[in-house]
Amino acid sequence: MSDSQVMLKDYLSSAARLVESELEHSLPPEWSVPEKLREAMAYSLAAGGKRLRPVFVLASAEAARGDERDREAAVAVACAIEMVHTYSLVHDDLPAMDNDDFRRGKPTNHRVYGEAMAILAGDALLTHAFHLAASARHRGAQAETVLDIVEDLARLSGASGMVGGQAADMQGEQGITSLAELEYIHEHKTSDLIVFSVTAGARLGGVDSEALEKVAEFGRKIGLAFQIQDDILDLVGDEQKLGKKTNSDTAAGKVTYPYLVGMEESRSIMERLTNEAKQALLAANLRRPERLLELADYLMNRDR
Amino acid sequence: MSDSQVMLKDYLSSAARLVESELEHSLPPEWSVPEKLREAMAYSLAAGGKRLRPVFVLASAEAARGDERDREAAVAVACAIEMVHTYSLVHDDLPAMDNDDFRRGKPTNHRVYGEAMAILAGDALLTHAFHLAASARHRGAQAETVLDIVEDLARLSGASGMVGGQAADMQGEQGITSLAELEYIHEHKTSDLIVFSVTAGARLGGVDSEALEKVAEFGRKIGLAFQIQDDILDLVGDEQKLGKKTNSDTAAGKVTYPYLVGMEESRSIMERLTNEAKQALLAANLRRPERLLELADYLMNRDR
Repeated sequence: MSDSQVMLKDYLSSAARLVESELEHSLPPEWSVPEKLREAMAYSLAAGGKRLRPVFVLASAEAARGDERDREAAVAVACAIEMVHTYSLVHDDLPAMDNDDFRRGKPTNHRVYGEAMAILAGDALLTHAFHLAASARHRGAQAETVLDIVEDLARLSGASGMVGGQAADMQGEQGITSLAELEYIHEHKTSDLIVFSVTAGARLGGVDSEALEKVAEFGRKIGLAFQIQDDILDLVGDEQKLGKKTNSDTAAGKVTYPYLVGMEESRSIMERLTNEAKQALLAANLRRPERLLELADYLMNRDR
Repeated sequence: MSDSQVMLKDYLSSAARLVESELEHSLPPEWSVPEKLREAMAYSLAAGGKRLRPVFVLASAEAARGDERDREAAVAVACAIEMVHTYSLVHDDLPAMDNDDFRRGKPTNHRVYGEAMAILAGDALLTHAFHLAASARHRGAQAETVLDIVEDLARLSGASGMVGGQAADMQGEQGITSLAELEYIHEHKTSDLIVFSVTAGARLGGVDSEALEKVAEFGRKIGLAFQIQDDILDLVGDEQKLGKKTNSDTAAGKVTYPYLVGMEESRSIMERLTNEAKQALLAANLRRPERLLELADYLMNRDR
């Protein structure tokens, strides 16, 4: 690994640790929540993962501002988006949805706490995410900026965002035939939360609306590239490194990029998207875009 | 009926109509949402009910402000709380929860759209509620006030609010033995959204924090009284008027106020709570509290 790769890895793991320690303290106070409900919420929050979305909030705020100080507001928003991501996994795993028994090697929420509690825990995580996002105003962010972020969060994670992508995915299981359809699903199911993360960070860093457009484009394209790499790894990845079985998409009859356009074309689309994403980011003229650019390359070249 | 009762009924139906016509236009634009998902959201939003929570937002804003002008922001918040209420019913009716096939005489959401879509429609309604609440700032409300409202909405409908009440209710089905336990469930399952409604209205009407406390107490007690009356009507109400079968609580083995303390004591608790609520409201010194006071009496004396 090159020096900059080592530094990026260090950054990723320290940012993820920061978010994780903050997540532990971000649930509503113990006395105010029924014990089992709080336990179910904490269980899935602690279940790990790359913490990619919250890391993008931090990295984007730092890129826009040019330094790593005053992280308070960004950390609150980072925890908010991780809660939204976590709730979506809890609901996605339910018997009526994907019916998964395991996630990241651990039993899924409803396997441990029962279906009803898993539904409620998901609802509570989603709701609490908005409390956390709004709380950024007590941590140094301006009220108008925080409201922009709350509106973005609702739009990008709701019916015209992530939930819309999931609904389209569910209906598409009866047979996706075009790349446009698959792109729609990926854009909303995966990209939208990443678009939220990078734009929320940029908003906290005070960028103007023109730059914000470019940052959003970066997020959209990185998100798509990320999902294509996911599809590819599911076919040719190392089960040990991935921590899950490969070929799960094929087994589930899922339509993916490699399925639709072949492996080689998928790789080339992913590379093109990553490059276009980096161009968009450069056009945003952030103070210190380097780390976001490195993150884009890192995601494309990851093996898990 | 007395003149003031006629006027209150007129107010209630015109406020409910206003909210309903606004709700129709408040979903994200058609092109941005998968058709089935939008249909499932609209289906439950249109399924009716008393629209009590949104009416409380409007009435409370008008009581605080002293007139019925500038309703724009209050209407947005009113729609937001109705969306939260609606999502909670959709999720509550799911097979893993109460497993209800009908609500207000119509097939429940999952009976029409399937379980997976009902879960997603509920998620999307909850998420969109925060978009609507935040949008109040484009309708004349101040950013700080809107953020207070967003925080309240998340707290009162989340893990330490309504969802917490539902979780406690679910666990309590194994056997509630004390009035305190039952009160906890009712306070969160039912009162919290009413507390939100009256305090959000009061915030939009510009009341100070001391008055806000009193308004919250009004909401808490009215909510409890409302729930006790629900329990009573389930035992002695007129099925025709209620539009649903009576004795459903007994059939479902639910612990209620009449079950725990008897019918007479339940009635006397309800009356005491209503009177205390009205006292609290008077202490808040709103400009025109009359209609809220009438609403309190109306709820206690309703037969459906």
